Amino acid sequence: MSEKVVGFIGTGVMGKGMIRNLMKAGYSLRVYNRTKEKAEELISEGADWRNSPAAVAESADIVITMVGYPGDVESVYFNDGILDHAKSGTYVIDMTTSSPQLAEKISTAAKKKGLHALDAPVSGGDIGAQNGTLSIMVGGEEADAKMMLPIFQAMGRKIVYQGQAGSGQHTKMANQIAIASNMIGVAEALAYARYAGLDTDKVMESIETGAAGSWSLSNLGPRMLKGDFAPGFYIKHLIKDEGIALDSAKSMGLETPGLSLSKEIYDQLAAAGEENSGTQAIFKKYMKK
Amino acid sequence: MSEKVVGFIGTGVMGKGMIRNLMKAGYSLRVYNRTKEKAEELISEGADWRNSPAAVAESADIVITMVGYPGDVESVYFNDGILDHAKSGTYVIDMTTSSPQLAEKISTAAKKKGLHALDAPVSGGDIGAQNGTLSIMVGGEEADAKMMLPIFQAMGRKIVYQGQAGSGQHTKMANQIAIASNMIGVAEALAYARYAGLDTDKVMESIETGAAGSWSLSNLGPRMLKGDFAPGFYIKHLIKDEGIALDSAKSMGLETPGLSLSKEIYDQLAAAGEENSGTQAIFKKYMKK
Repeated sequence: MSEKVVGFIGTGVMGKGMIRNLMKAGYSLRVYNRTKEKAEELISEGADWRNSPAAVAESADIVITMVGYPGDVESVYFNDGILDHAKSGTYVIDMTTSSPQLAEKISTAAKKKGLHALDAPVSGGDIGAQNGTLSIMVGGEEADAKMMLPIFQAMGRKIVYQGQAGSGQHTKMANQIAIASNMIGVAEALAYARYAGLDTDKVMESIETGAAGSWSLSNLGPRMLKGDFAPGFYIKHLIKDEGIALDSAKSMGLETPGLSLSKEIYDQLAAAGEENSGTQAIFKKYMKK
Repeated sequence: MSEKVVGFIGTGVMGKGMIRNLMKAGYSLRVYNRTKEKAEELISEGADWRNSPAAVAESADIVITMVGYPGDVESVYFNDGILDHAKSGTYVIDMTTSSPQLAEKISTAAKKKGLHALDAPVSGGDIGAQNGTLSIMVGGEEADAKMMLPIFQAMGRKIVYQGQAGSGQHTKMANQIAIASNMIGVAEALAYARYAGLDTDKVMESIETGAAGSWSLSNLGPRMLKGDFAPGFYIKHLIKDEGIALDSAKSMGLETPGLSLSKEIYDQLAAAGEENSGTQAIFKKYMKK
């Protein structure tokens, strides 16, 4: 596969790591980003700049998108974008965390044009993107997912085919929903410990390996306690994901009060200027006195 | 220490396992339980029955309580109970999950009588009690906690001294607070996955080892998905703990909306007849259609 040309739209923190791993695996890269400056480093490393999503799509066998919001996904695929300009037979893969319903819409439109669409959002953050250890959740036609396996393996470690178009996004939403409420639990537990005057190191020793244990408690708990609120995963991005998940759950008739509460709390924090803090800054809500 | 006589009040599922491990370690046991039938098995194995908490206290060097509610703890310690009948120098250890404020009150009263009081709630459930692998969170005088270490080691594996009287209970509350919200997140994530028509085994494969991972997701998630709602940890007991935690948080000026939401949901489930189900039955709230 490594003679294939890969187009990549979105050279932010995530995209940068993923593009480097694709180049390392031998692929030729065509890149576009709304702000060109953010692509300069990659260009100097050998990625080939194109002036628009359409220009990327015209020149690639595989087009990957890693942009910000569902609105950005919509705009690079539709509106004289990827779907109108990709050659028949091109694989188009949206790795942005985005709406499952939009993934279905892209898939349907792509099929009409003779394109192969996959939704393949990731978890693992910028570190996972850099190290090529992302978890990748893939939705779309199974044969297409198999064909793209070498591409995914260049960027991730745990690659799971989840089912028809939208299933990758749905899986990512399940992931974010679990995180949404657990962040509340971790913050409330540690705030309680601090209010009670406990030695929080000892509390962690007692609770982190038992039934209260979680990735967030072990990894973000210590940052809360140190007052280290740097991202990691931005509050503004979790709010975006929670909004998509809430809409999607509602559209399926599922009420999710924990997710609603989490979004309320994070919305308040964003309104108070914390949108660019890491999600562990939820701790500030409890410790403001 | 093994010539010491240990009094044990409360021979329920937890107490039974703990008492057997104490006997295995060579201690002589004096036991009392509100319902004598529940102690018969232990009596046949060599535990010595006494007719009241007072009678247990009079005959033991160390008195352990493992009862139901803070009201039960209060009634065995006060009201012509342990504190009035224990010999000076006796160690009295409440291992019930109970109120931190009550633990402080017992400690103060015990000191006046020349007794050594510890609060030492546990996590690890009936399996941990049986296997002697409980996590034990100890509050009280540090010298007293050290003196009782062999007793704790007979019943548990991770024994952590948490600080002054009440600190063991406070630590257990932090543990339950983390669990309270995480149970919502796990149930909502898996309900979402099911509503979306995903293959939940594949979803678990994608999400359980990443940032959404937790003990509850890995251990209770599969039971939710199988419809196995047997306890485990009873809903009625989590409700009790959540009530204590809420009162305690409020008394310290800490608002815990996640904990409040969890208690609301579990109260509804109990009202619908689920009080004797395992805490994973929270999944039913989301899957009722």
